Amino acid sequence: MFESAELGHRIDKATYEAEVPKLREALLDAQFELAQHAAFPVIILIGGVDGAGRSEIVNVLNEWMDPRHIQTHGMGEPSIEELERPMMWRFWLALPPKGKIGLFLGSWYTWPILDCVHGRTKEADLVRSLERAHRLEQMLSAEGALIIKFWLHLSRAKQKQRFKLLESDPKTRWRVTERDWAHHKLYDRFHAAHEAVIRHTSTAEVPWIIVEGADANYRDLTIGKVILEALNKRLNRPAEERPSPLPSPFLPAIDNLHLLRSLDLDLALDKKRFKSELEKYQGKLALLTRDPGFNDITVIVVFEGNDAAGKGGSIRRITAALDARLYSVIPIAAPTEDERAQPYQWRFWRHIPRRGRLAIFDRSWYGRVLVERIEGYCSSHDWMRAYHEINDFESQLARHRTVIVKFWLAISKEEQLRRFKEREQIGFKRFKITEEDWRNRNRWDDYERAVCDMVDRTSTGHAPWTLVEANDKSYARIKILKTLCQRIEDAIKRP
Amino acid sequence: MFESAELGHRIDKATYEAEVPKLREALLDAQFELAQHAAFPVIILIGGVDGAGRSEIVNVLNEWMDPRHIQTHGMGEPSIEELERPMMWRFWLALPPKGKIGLFLGSWYTWPILDCVHGRTKEADLVRSLERAHRLEQMLSAEGALIIKFWLHLSRAKQKQRFKLLESDPKTRWRVTERDWAHHKLYDRFHAAHEAVIRHTSTAEVPWIIVEGADANYRDLTIGKVILEALNKRLNRPAEERPSPLPSPFLPAIDNLHLLRSLDLDLALDKKRFKSELEKYQGKLALLTRDPGFNDITVIVVFEGNDAAGKGGSIRRITAALDARLYSVIPIAAPTEDERAQPYQWRFWRHIPRRGRLAIFDRSWYGRVLVERIEGYCSSHDWMRAYHEINDFESQLARHRTVIVKFWLAISKEEQLRRFKEREQIGFKRFKITEEDWRNRNRWDDYERAVCDMVDRTSTGHAPWTLVEANDKSYARIKILKTLCQRIEDAIKRP
Repeated sequence: MFESAELGHRIDKATYEAEVPKLREALLDAQFELAQHAAFPVIILIGGVDGAGRSEIVNVLNEWMDPRHIQTHGMGEPSIEELERPMMWRFWLALPPKGKIGLFLGSWYTWPILDCVHGRTKEADLVRSLERAHRLEQMLSAEGALIIKFWLHLSRAKQKQRFKLLESDPKTRWRVTERDWAHHKLYDRFHAAHEAVIRHTSTAEVPWIIVEGADANYRDLTIGKVILEALNKRLNRPAEERPSPLPSPFLPAIDNLHLLRSLDLDLALDKKRFKSELEKYQGKLALLTRDPGFNDITVIVVFEGNDAAGKGGSIRRITAALDARLYSVIPIAAPTEDERAQPYQWRFWRHIPRRGRLAIFDRSWYGRVLVERIEGYCSSHDWMRAYHEINDFESQLARHRTVIVKFWLAISKEEQLRRFKEREQIGFKRFKITEEDWRNRNRWDDYERAVCDMVDRTSTGHAPWTLVEANDKSYARIKILKTLCQRIEDAIKRP
Repeated sequence: MFESAELGHRIDKATYEAEVPKLREALLDAQFELAQHAAFPVIILIGGVDGAGRSEIVNVLNEWMDPRHIQTHGMGEPSIEELERPMMWRFWLALPPKGKIGLFLGSWYTWPILDCVHGRTKEADLVRSLERAHRLEQMLSAEGALIIKFWLHLSRAKQKQRFKLLESDPKTRWRVTERDWAHHKLYDRFHAAHEAVIRHTSTAEVPWIIVEGADANYRDLTIGKVILEALNKRLNRPAEERPSPLPSPFLPAIDNLHLLRSLDLDLALDKKRFKSELEKYQGKLALLTRDPGFNDITVIVVFEGNDAAGKGGSIRRITAALDARLYSVIPIAAPTEDERAQPYQWRFWRHIPRRGRLAIFDRSWYGRVLVERIEGYCSSHDWMRAYHEINDFESQLARHRTVIVKFWLAISKEEQLRRFKEREQIGFKRFKITEEDWRNRNRWDDYERAVCDMVDRTSTGHAPWTLVEANDKSYARIKILKTLCQRIEDAIKRP
């Protein structure tokens, strides 16, 4: 796969100097148009072998283009903060918003390759990481990102030559480290891993562009021109080339027996019993979060439910038992401007807590398959692919020892009406009821259908849904506290 | 994920009998329209737990629909013939052509699940198999197939109840085997594997439809209705919902140094040397194919090259050394009617030989990224995704101990002209030169570009391209024989 990048491509100084000014001007124009319309983000990955000039090209691009619209990320060893989150967390946070270019030196490929070459993981693990990278890129593409991946290549002989050359000059000697020579000795193993990278992740949507790294003029000009071509192609894309959604078959609601109807909403607790149980489980939760084992896990609690089902009250019964430094409550409403400039999942990734912490989402990423589906805020293909993407997201969290506890608070249509009316009458509750609530109520059946599909498609062993009978608030709150304690206890006890 | 399919869905006899006639008529209408236009194939997979009625529904569907347009495949244990090919071979051969429905009882999911549950493989292997299944389905979708996947579910209690019920009746007792009870004991392990299947392979394009299998009326009617809905949705798809291709950035040809230009086409062999080398390597090849180790491998040789580059002559120098029972030569021309009714790769899968055999492809699956790309016979997105799909295809072959030897025969533009003219003058060679040859010649530069991209993107460790300097036929033929011997020898010697 690297044959063409071992031919000794060169560009002489005169040609280079004649071409660069034109290229820079065109790149600046394209960048300006990109920023102007802010229609999509651009993600540029620079991968390749040591000594092929990865960091040089990053500097060159920053020099050629407008650095205000480029975000450069040199992804080195992950920090302690970063190690306490799933591997992808830091990349998500670094994604450029629409209209900007994110330039990544080191990416989601770097560590899987190194782990495999140094024998810390097996080839099958590398392939799994590559499949994950592939799916991430598919998702980012589907969300509109333009991804350009460069692979800078040097033959074994050229790599050696390059290191020797740098070492021979006192001004550049510092650039060749022992690590570089150690990697040179492992050239064949790197080569095999690199070939696997290209084979598994060079796709029609996001192909790798392999560039010979031996001659700086050739390398810089080639990369600059490819970026320019890709930018212009996308900026000038005719309407008929925009991807159109695929229609998807779906399970028709053939009978009226579904999960929500199978709940016994009459379940209730009397006041006395409630008080004693509340005390018991809040105490238990407080102790669990002080257990040394709690520092090895992360807890994410998701609240979804009908309007007026009592999410807020339930959350307060949890937080009452917690040290304020341990948790955060994240209310999810309509996305902000910053959030709209990013792929859908970004706004949730940014709130993933570190080890020993608890994040409570008051509504969540499930908005995509609930309100967005029903109100048509996204295409049917978008919410259909969301099930798969959500499962993927939660798998990543679970692999990172995150306890994911998801509650759907269910009330009856009559109970909702009672609560809406009550809210309208009580002054301090009036802010809680809006036009939107009444509108959602009119789509009750659509919501029921969407909730059942959601549970069917995203309730998994590591992130099961708990359906909570919430007509009686006391019953609901205790069921929630009890479930949460149980899940945390299981996770701490697990070897 | 299976919660909804444990609620005890039922449909009473009266409703069932009232609905079935309408449904059957509608299904037959849809089937007729499907066959009439023959625009796409339909692939229906029936998966699920034992006892949930997988084979019953297959019988019902065959009864309800027109069996002339249904191909039913009960994919049991693979035969010896099938074991001697990659796992996917038998599925490829069983794919329905456009206008037909292929009904699969047992599929590419069956064996990976069984292997994992019985501990013959690890969870990571299951995930890899699922990723492969996912990619296969993506490819079939991209080629236009409608895929509908049903998962029939039973809770552990319902499964037991079902087996007991069948056993209690002398007429059905034979249907419950020891294997069924053994699987029932492993219910939890199956459940975990099944959840992994749904999680990894339920996508927006090809979602799993989970159906409770306890009540036959419910099961049959639900599946029938979903098939009807999916068929009609696709048959009546408005033009604007057809998927449109994504434009892809591509490496511009920035300089004139490329792989083909780096060849020394003056390389030649004198007559005497040719004769002795020919004898030597044909003898060697004959011995290698008689080596006991040859029965453990499969050999696939691919010939591509410029028109008049000497593919036929080179192939004859190989086959001259072989026992006629061992090899087949497969000339690839424009696809036949049967082939056009199938996904692109089908016509190559059908010719994959068993162990100890050799298949020589005179032109091959690389047509997609050569002539089809250049002549615009497929969209740019189609040939762009072909690189990835070809690498996948060859990986599957290589994992199955197939030696893949790929030759590009390169001649200069002048040499081609000389040979064209010669062919026009010599009577028995005149059939070898057509209008098309002259047309291709006019697109020489486009072909060079396509060949370089092809080699860059599909030359891998397990299936490398060998570029053959073919201006001198003797030189070319010896290089080819030598390379082929070397690759076979390496494979036989490998432990």
